[in-house]
Amino acid sequence: MTALQNNTFIKALLKQDTEYTPVWLMRQAGRYLPEYREVRQNAGGFMDLCRNTDFATEVTLQPIDRFNLDAAILFSDILTVPDAMGLGLSFVAGEGPKFAHPVQDEKAVQQLAVPDMEKLSYVFNAVASIKNALNNRVPLIGFSGSPFTLACYMIEGGGSRDFRLVKEMLYRRPDLLHRVLEINANAVTAYLNQQIAAGANAVQIFDTWGGILSDAAFGEFSLQYITKIINGLTKQDANGNQVPVIVFVKGGGLWLEQMAQSGANALGLDWTVNIKDARRRVGDKVALQGNFDPFALFGTGQSIEAEVKRILADYGKGNGHIFNLGHGIHQLTDPERVKDLVNAVHELSRAYH
Amino acid sequence: MTALQNNTFIKALLKQDTEYTPVWLMRQAGRYLPEYREVRQNAGGFMDLCRNTDFATEVTLQPIDRFNLDAAILFSDILTVPDAMGLGLSFVAGEGPKFAHPVQDEKAVQQLAVPDMEKLSYVFNAVASIKNALNNRVPLIGFSGSPFTLACYMIEGGGSRDFRLVKEMLYRRPDLLHRVLEINANAVTAYLNQQIAAGANAVQIFDTWGGILSDAAFGEFSLQYITKIINGLTKQDANGNQVPVIVFVKGGGLWLEQMAQSGANALGLDWTVNIKDARRRVGDKVALQGNFDPFALFGTGQSIEAEVKRILADYGKGNGHIFNLGHGIHQLTDPERVKDLVNAVHELSRAYH
Repeated sequence: MTALQNNTFIKALLKQDTEYTPVWLMRQAGRYLPEYREVRQNAGGFMDLCRNTDFATEVTLQPIDRFNLDAAILFSDILTVPDAMGLGLSFVAGEGPKFAHPVQDEKAVQQLAVPDMEKLSYVFNAVASIKNALNNRVPLIGFSGSPFTLACYMIEGGGSRDFRLVKEMLYRRPDLLHRVLEINANAVTAYLNQQIAAGANAVQIFDTWGGILSDAAFGEFSLQYITKIINGLTKQDANGNQVPVIVFVKGGGLWLEQMAQSGANALGLDWTVNIKDARRRVGDKVALQGNFDPFALFGTGQSIEAEVKRILADYGKGNGHIFNLGHGIHQLTDPERVKDLVNAVHELSRAYH
Repeated sequence: MTALQNNTFIKALLKQDTEYTPVWLMRQAGRYLPEYREVRQNAGGFMDLCRNTDFATEVTLQPIDRFNLDAAILFSDILTVPDAMGLGLSFVAGEGPKFAHPVQDEKAVQQLAVPDMEKLSYVFNAVASIKNALNNRVPLIGFSGSPFTLACYMIEGGGSRDFRLVKEMLYRRPDLLHRVLEINANAVTAYLNQQIAAGANAVQIFDTWGGILSDAAFGEFSLQYITKIINGLTKQDANGNQVPVIVFVKGGGLWLEQMAQSGANALGLDWTVNIKDARRRVGDKVALQGNFDPFALFGTGQSIEAEVKRILADYGKGNGHIFNLGHGIHQLTDPERVKDLVNAVHELSRAYH
């Protein structure tokens, strides 16, 4: 295996010196790209796209070919794991994900088990295929949902406005929720380790819904299980290179100090956090990824440059910053504005390194 | 005018000593109460209920009669102000509020003006009627939406999942958004002053959507205008009693230090904030209101008591805490659990005073 041609992203995650601030975007392969919409039309449903190695490889590389990004991220979905548990995932147009068999009572919780990783081989095959297609241009990020975020979908049976059923289980039957989270943590650990074995150079754990928890509940029901996963991860690839771990908790800005103790190499920040304060709060413990408001991409080239400038100046001089959005890119975003963003980060960040 | 029989709430807002921690609940008059649903059935639509003085008085007093609460809050809606601006408010069943004439272009922004307060006289009449019916049992809270939160509805034309149109205006045409916010701030100042003149003993500014802003944008587009309102408020009632101001920004936990500089007497906290940290961060500047997870009311009597105990212990000894939920009560809440909550706060808090 040859070395990565552009290793800036991995170096920044490990807080090593780089010449500029690397940038990638959450959901960078997606509906805002016309070339993605074209593939999607031929592929059928969303999960068909994830399950087909060629399609998954093609769409993962689309933003890499179009923009000067410093990392690729596996095209997949966080719900592959509960799907492999037999909960019956489907995507209803305009409604989002649905599970035919949500986990809503004691019996359903008792029947839940870590799935056979064989059922997820399509994901590991996609990782290997993408690695091959990337040909070491940039690193590849593997990912998973956090145990709590997966539990939200598994218990609600899909998305939710208020996650009342999850909260009800949390407050009435914390023992049941802990069992779900324990199983999810074991499943995610095996899942990410297989992505690493297949060639992922870094992994990100998405805790999209951790931010709905109370301050007291976040540690017990989300962060504890993220920490458990990180402890169980293979932290080196086949060549002895370190595989860094990123933890992103949307709405988790109040809990950065705790999250910095999780063993993660980097924390993702949403746009509500001041990155200067965040850096002061976490000290040298972790790198920081973020935190441009995805809706600021609906601004002008000029306003985008001003926002990039502000975030770079707030982070300040030195290593350990990976530029990203504070959440996934919106499907109505103009790809030309993404180009403005990536170029601004690359040009303006050199002064800080 | 005779003095309030139970003045614990006002004293706590002013950080004076009290014998126990006062408690009220956001949206305490509402659909979770069977007696509310009955009145609602006879009243017609939601705005008809707000506009009818007798109905508004009756539902405001319902939770006061049922629970041992330390404050009443005017039954109304934050969208009365943009409605009075002529934007054509209606409530579509199952869909929430809609404006027939949203403010989406330069022309609509230019036409916007502070409404004649005469159009809102039904609100001030309700305040006077409720004051009379309360007969000084507990204080009455008046309220308004914040300029930014009102702008969200005015620009989107109703609720929104992502507030893309507001953000687009913010990043592309900040001048237009500033004009809307300036008008809203002037309107809200007049509106709250008239509520105070009609008898409100305290006022709360709800910034329900301030938390969607980036750290940089929050100060410029939301807090600046809240501060402007507070500067313009009559801070005494006709008898020379101080009328305290509460500012509640949902998702604003990262910005408490800035908010404590706004001139508010108290800050509302949602449930993601650790109230001990919050108290340390704001020091003696303001009282704190909150911050029980509304979904913890779906727990058991025992789990509710445990949560109350935790929050009281986290706040610790001394004055300046008003117990409340971290957001409005959910319509499926069992009123018996609310009784558990109120009783637990009153009993357990005496040890801290």
